[in-house]
Amino acid sequence: MNVYPPGIPDTEFIRGDVPMTKAEVRALTLSKARLRDGLRVLDIGAGTGSLSIEAALLCPRGEVTAVERARGALELLDRNIARFGVTNVAVVAGEAPDALAGLGIFDRILLGGSGGRMAELLHALPAALAPGGWVVANAICLESAYQLLARFRRAPWFGCDIVHVAVSRGAPIGSLTRFEPLSPVWIVAAQVEGE
Amino acid sequence: MNVYPPGIPDTEFIRGDVPMTKAEVRALTLSKARLRDGLRVLDIGAGTGSLSIEAALLCPRGEVTAVERARGALELLDRNIARFGVTNVAVVAGEAPDALAGLGIFDRILLGGSGGRMAELLHALPAALAPGGWVVANAICLESAYQLLARFRRAPWFGCDIVHVAVSRGAPIGSLTRFEPLSPVWIVAAQVEGE
Amino acid sequence: MNVYPPGIPDTEFIRGDVPMTKAEVRALTLSKARLRDGLRVLDIGAGTGSLSIEAALLCPRGEVTAVERARGALELLDRNIARFGVTNVAVVAGEAPDALAGLGIFDRILLGGSGGRMAELLHALPAALAPGGWVVANAICLESAYQLLARFRRAPWFGCDIVHVAVSRGAPIGSLTRFEPLSPVWIVAAQVEGE
Amino acid sequence: MNVYPPGIPDTEFIRGDVPMTKAEVRALTLSKARLRDGLRVLDIGAGTGSLSIEAALLCPRGEVTAVERARGALELLDRNIARFGVTNVAVVAGEAPDALAGLGIFDRILLGGSGGRMAELLHALPAALAPGGWVVANAICLESAYQLLARFRRAPWFGCDIVHVAVSRGAPIGSLTRFEPLSPVWIVAAQVEGE
Repeated sequence: MNVYPPGIPDTEFIRGDVPMTKAEVRALTLSKARLRDGLRVLDIGAGTGSLSIEAALLCPRGEVTAVERARGALELLDRNIARFGVTNVAVVAGEAPDALAGLGIFDRILLGGSGGRMAELLHALPAALAPGGWVVANAICLESAYQLLARFRRAPWFGCDIVHVAVSRGAPIGSLTRFEPLSPVWIVAAQVEGE
Repeated sequence: MNVYPPGIPDTEFIRGDVPMTKAEVRALTLSKARLRDGLRVLDIGAGTGSLSIEAALLCPRGEVTAVERARGALELLDRNIARFGVTNVAVVAGEAPDALAGLGIFDRILLGGSGGRMAELLHALPAALAPGGWVVANAICLESAYQLLARFRRAPWFGCDIVHVAVSRGAPIGSLTRFEPLSPVWIVAAQVEGE
Repeated sequence: MNVYPPGIPDTEFIRGDVPMTKAEVRALTLSKARLRDGLRVLDIGAGTGSLSIEAALLCPRGEVTAVERARGALELLDRNIARFGVTNVAVVAGEAPDALAGLGIFDRILLGGSGGRMAELLHALPAALAPGGWVVANAICLESAYQLLARFRRAPWFGCDIVHVAVSRGAPIGSLTRFEPLSPVWIVAAQVEGE
Repeated sequence: MNVYPPGIPDTEFIRGDVPMTKAEVRALTLSKARLRDGLRVLDIGAGTGSLSIEAALLCPRGEVTAVERARGALELLDRNIARFGVTNVAVVAGEAPDALAGLGIFDRILLGGSGGRMAELLHALPAALAPGGWVVANAICLESAYQLLARFRRAPWFGCDIVHVAVSRGAPIGSLTRFEPLSPVWIVAAQVEGE
């Protein structure tokens, strides 16, 4: 397979019925994550694994841990990992923050969904991050964006950055081109204090 | 300097008065470019060099050629290349398409601006691209987006893809957060025919 | 029925399978049309009649002529006119510009769709407008927006104004609120020369 | 003056340094307000008066009460009211909710800004609204949108509706057209319970 991270088209992933972070949102999320090779990355709510796999390809000597609770998504995750032949993604079945116990600490945390346990999860994040590490969270709900922002604008977080992303994709309609909007998303990034 | 491509914050670049492609647009442009290490990349209208430098960091064994006609921008380009310590960006002073003569062929072409010579430039692109190579163009004007799309939806181009990107950035205002929109941009990508 | 123009919710109209200009786009289109009571308004490509009916309610002593070619839409148009009890909308079955013959001249023209005959239609518009009259056109395709803009930026048109509108609507998902984007649209307005 | 509500261009208002709700946002706000002639409308944080004046023109037999606390804005308000010759706008100098005492009840409340006293203001709104009346609030900050939504999704409010509006305006640049984005805004509407 011709692999180009970031920027793998959505159609390259096996998707099933699991919602997938769209290519453009993945690209922006990964750019906010300030990845470098060798980093340890935690992907919470990994879904189809599209973000984990792109992160793994960008950090070939790094390690990605993909946490996912839904059985259907876990199966797709495994299939997509096999499909792209990445060997540095470890899958953890379970729900954050419980599932984070014993996983060690990470340089980056990608937070695609909170499974409704946002407050607990936000509380657990600093302990899972190495000093100076970054979290990058996607929110499609206003209330989640609010909660993320309220938390990340205070210590032990700093450098908080939020963007609202509205991308629409051109779709041919005869010789013309109309635009189909993706769901708008907020991307929130913050760095945890460290030496 | 702590370098993380893609995703270098705008403030890391020396900017002067030259307009710069914003970080979020760079990230999406580079993701549409499907970069891989080792590729030869041509950046037309390189400006401050932000896109060239990120491409160079993503393709450390590749080669980036940055074409720019404005004297002020050329100086910034040199300073930013020095600042990031990239050794695989070659600067060519001149205006495309004239300046492309003798530069050889490329695997990817990034087109940030046409300098008003869009038709000529579009005509010259296929000869500057290796078979199967991609062009990714940014347009901030409706007429430019139209012209790009009209051209890239026909042979020798295929796989044409256009997105409209509207990003707004959160800005603290006391304890609240308002959003400052970036200029919306169209990103058009297409692949040239090849064996 | 509780009627409030502009701002009638989409759900108040009988819709069938006919695409309908969404409430937010109608409100902006009508605001660009600078309506006043007593004006003669032509609505080309009237569809379900939502725009015609709101215009008729805003100009109770004015006259709205709704041109539509599709049989299914014509039936909905009649039913919606009856439903809102407006008596100042005349329906003309046919395709513009042919159907404009004999209709006289108008103070405002609303152009929702060109039926693929944009060039002919644009050519016919000035003769159908009273001096100083305004046209307001909606475009969902980039090529249509381009064509409208190219035409309306030249004589006999002036005061040309284009906006790109991206509205997303909040949708409850449990106790949270996600946003569903409407199709983005360009709204182009221009005034014809007059004494 | 040639007056056309809604849809008065921004340039028709005397603006000074006071921020003004832009024409497109006014049109959408007024459309969400479901105005009808004869209604009593309260405009909180009236600023330059652009919204009050358009509401007054849409409801010539209604009454608009414009509340504003800033001295500079109050002066502009008076000048704009005089400029448009509307006789059904009463100006109240003061800060909501204190300034609402003794003003009676209204059919519609337009809420352009909270002056930082959002919680108090939201508490006071139901008593200022006639049964079945509507409030329409604009928010440019995420936290304000959150607070409005959290309040209006519960009794005594119902029918809560929120939209995110991103409009960009075409601006000629030579023979081309680029787009300048307005600040994105949330518009939240809700109806108070009634008999």
